[in-house]
Amino acid sequence: MNNRQNPNTIFGIHPVKEALLSKSSIDRILVQKELKSRIFKEFGDAWNPDHLIPVQKVPREALNNITKENHQGIVAYLSPIEYASIEAVTLALFDAGKEPLILMMDHITDVKNFGAIVRTAESLGVDAIVIPTKGSAKINAEAIKSSSGAIFHIPICRYPNLIDATDLLMALGLKVIAATEKGNLAIDYADLTGPVVLVMGSEEKGITKSILKRSNLNTNITTIGKTASLNVSVATGIILYEINRQRNK
Amino acid sequence: MNNRQNPNTIFGIHPVKEALLSKSSIDRILVQKELKSRIFKEFGDAWNPDHLIPVQKVPREALNNITKENHQGIVAYLSPIEYASIEAVTLALFDAGKEPLILMMDHITDVKNFGAIVRTAESLGVDAIVIPTKGSAKINAEAIKSSSGAIFHIPICRYPNLIDATDLLMALGLKVIAATEKGNLAIDYADLTGPVVLVMGSEEKGITKSILKRSNLNTNITTIGKTASLNVSVATGIILYEINRQRNK
Repeated sequence: MNNRQNPNTIFGIHPVKEALLSKSSIDRILVQKELKSRIFKEFGDAWNPDHLIPVQKVPREALNNITKENHQGIVAYLSPIEYASIEAVTLALFDAGKEPLILMMDHITDVKNFGAIVRTAESLGVDAIVIPTKGSAKINAEAIKSSSGAIFHIPICRYPNLIDATDLLMALGLKVIAATEKGNLAIDYADLTGPVVLVMGSEEKGITKSILKRSNLNTNITTIGKTASLNVSVATGIILYEINRQRNK
Repeated sequence: MNNRQNPNTIFGIHPVKEALLSKSSIDRILVQKELKSRIFKEFGDAWNPDHLIPVQKVPREALNNITKENHQGIVAYLSPIEYASIEAVTLALFDAGKEPLILMMDHITDVKNFGAIVRTAESLGVDAIVIPTKGSAKINAEAIKSSSGAIFHIPICRYPNLIDATDLLMALGLKVIAATEKGNLAIDYADLTGPVVLVMGSEEKGITKSILKRSNLNTNITTIGKTASLNVSVATGIILYEINRQRNK
């Protein structure tokens, strides 16, 4: 279909293995169904499941559509950013005597909203952003542009399952604040101080139910008009502002 | 150039006169240069400069490009919304015992930002929006979509010159709050209570100098990260949130 080679694509067993060894950030791997186990055996220690790189099994034709070259059954997409580890980032903040302020973006798929939220978060002192490995907006040129480049100045951590990520952050001592229109507590009446993870959902689906159940606070922003609905980046900005205000009181 | 007839266009002396008499909201009028005085004479009392409708003198060819019909030297664009009067809106609020909260959008030309700000404003209790007659985003289908329809639920007032509009609002007893990155007062340390007009500028040009000079407060939002720049709709949301918080304290 597409004759132009995507500059962020690498293919062939050896090049992908080298990328894995050099710790280049790989966004995702597509592998030919029937060759997967043989190829990953060849990777040996270069492949480490802790990398959290999503691997998708596809038919040979899918790979042929991506490149005309001899792909040997494997194609990898390089990521424009290097992902960070939730644990490492959080522990480093505690070590530095800081109270972590983490933002979890729960399946926000709109690229422009994604970029706008990253810009807002970085401008208002968020220490790291957590996204799901699958089902989040692609970090592409449009996301980078919408973020005003902020994407390069803030650690982004991806995790296969955000419920597990929430449990991990709670175990690390963070308070989970969910922002939801159904929240029973207006943010200016909630205690947003301390080490916190703020969870924002998509405008369509909101926050994953199991995360809402785990959260320490289900908060909302008081709206007044008939529209009574805020864009998710505006809502994120308001809550981060309120967190900073309470911290500096 | 364009053979399709714009459904929001009317043309011909009599139809435009009828639209003026019926108080249909006209967005702007294009009139053939050398026919202007003769046509406006024919309008008689139907034309009232208080309507604040911008009139642009153009060559006959410009009108021919808009419609193939016999336009008689005049074309008018109908507006999807009806504009309100600053004075009438403000006085009605005072009469109802309310403290007006007015938002002035100082030459914000990006249609999506414009819509997003209207949505945020309507959701956070703004009573009316003031825009300049020329040099503001067009209120078109995209603006309406970006506003989530909020544009139909909030009075929008246009004024030929925003400096005059500021003077008028000050004379009516409103405090002028300018939001500017160069502001010397963080919003949480400023007194934002009382009848106010909040002025937001475009991300490129900021607020008109003469309005900044007139303003009672030049405020900013404390940013922390490297990007240190907020999208104008996010900034509007944060300041409106802080105004509401202080009002309800």
